[in-house]
Amino acid sequence: MTGLCIGLDPDPKKIPAHYGTGAEGMENFIESVIESTSHVARAYKPNFAFFEQYGPEGVNVLYGLRDMIPIEIPIIGDAKRGDIGNTSRAYARSVFHTMHFNAITVNPFMGSDSVRPFLEYEGTTVYVLALTSNAGSADFQRSLCGSELMYKRVIKSSIAYAIDQPGTVGFVVGATHPDELREIRDMVPESPLLIPGVGAQGGDAAAIVAANNGGPAFINVSRGILYATTESDHASQTRMKAEEYAKILNQ
Amino acid sequence: MTGLCIGLDPDPKKIPAHYGTGAEGMENFIESVIESTSHVARAYKPNFAFFEQYGPEGVNVLYGLRDMIPIEIPIIGDAKRGDIGNTSRAYARSVFHTMHFNAITVNPFMGSDSVRPFLEYEGTTVYVLALTSNAGSADFQRSLCGSELMYKRVIKSSIAYAIDQPGTVGFVVGATHPDELREIRDMVPESPLLIPGVGAQGGDAAAIVAANNGGPAFINVSRGILYATTESDHASQTRMKAEEYAKILNQ
Repeated sequence: MTGLCIGLDPDPKKIPAHYGTGAEGMENFIESVIESTSHVARAYKPNFAFFEQYGPEGVNVLYGLRDMIPIEIPIIGDAKRGDIGNTSRAYARSVFHTMHFNAITVNPFMGSDSVRPFLEYEGTTVYVLALTSNAGSADFQRSLCGSELMYKRVIKSSIAYAIDQPGTVGFVVGATHPDELREIRDMVPESPLLIPGVGAQGGDAAAIVAANNGGPAFINVSRGILYATTESDHASQTRMKAEEYAKILNQ
Repeated sequence: MTGLCIGLDPDPKKIPAHYGTGAEGMENFIESVIESTSHVARAYKPNFAFFEQYGPEGVNVLYGLRDMIPIEIPIIGDAKRGDIGNTSRAYARSVFHTMHFNAITVNPFMGSDSVRPFLEYEGTTVYVLALTSNAGSADFQRSLCGSELMYKRVIKSSIAYAIDQPGTVGFVVGATHPDELREIRDMVPESPLLIPGVGAQGGDAAAIVAANNGGPAFINVSRGILYATTESDHASQTRMKAEEYAKILNQ
């Protein structure tokens, strides 16, 4: 049960010129991407950094996404937040209450009281970073903590944090680690996974679907769909790319 | 060489009524706090979550802080960001280039390529989370990774990430751990530290100054100064509180 998630990472250097410039051009670009892909997208994942770099006008577009994306398609706020309790509570309010998003990515480094406040919203999913797609995942996530690898410890601890909480806990597992993905799937067969790293980051879509072994998962593609071309036929190229990925990923 | 850092954590439930409500009331409140404390504050530390929860109008205030705070006082963006390389690069651009802040807090969980992009800005300081002030710091930061505690490994790795980078690396060490602070100070006598947790979180100001042993450090107080009272004399009470802390912390 995998579905295509489209990452919304608006990069001023890559947005085709005909959309315009600045936050306004970015909004046109995002609108076009949604229009061209919402028939196959099972989720969208806006990456907060890319909106924040545009300043307040860019953040405005982020807060407005729920009105631009069909309501039946969940929005995963890729925020990687995590802080002391009262601060995590404010981040959770921001993403679930103010933005009306359906899910968020959370960084577990600060431990239990930094993750729990995100789990207080019924019907939402909290994707905790376990094993990320980047090379730096080797530095701490794959280090041996006590008798087990850090990312396994994160998974076990997070499952414990979520007991009796209204929100659902899930995990971020990079598509660049298919062997570990298989192992994680064995550990948590029912947990929702968010799997980024297909396309520009090198993860192979079909291999990931196989490794996921039928569990609930969104597999994310960002640059591989968003920046199909810089030409004026960007909308149709984006549609084609999204449909190609959907064929493999919407299972 | 310690200095008082004032945390800007605007909490809609605690802002005195006479400032008004919503983002506008929040902006009045922040303006008043800055006016009442800038004669003793050595830095300000806006906590992004508290602005983001107000929606785009709140974020607008965050982006406008550099114009509200006297230019000689550094602003530390308490964002706890960290993501894959191209995303960290966008967060860094947002905080250093768009907001014109002087420093940021960064979460090291995703490793080298998630931290390095923040170090590319000359004259800025990147405070990497080492040992945070909350109870959850026991979950991963104090776990044994290989032969050493995770937070010590984070410190050593981050020092390595910063070699030959134009930015300066520093560390976040909670005031709730004075013994570990002393140890960390021995490890990195010259590194800038950001020490939150004094006041509401229970850290003792004088004990922290002693444990810091003369190294360069900002000691942060948020709730202990911001929410001195909900009465109409809030501005003068805030001034008094800030002056009290400054007497102990500006050494």
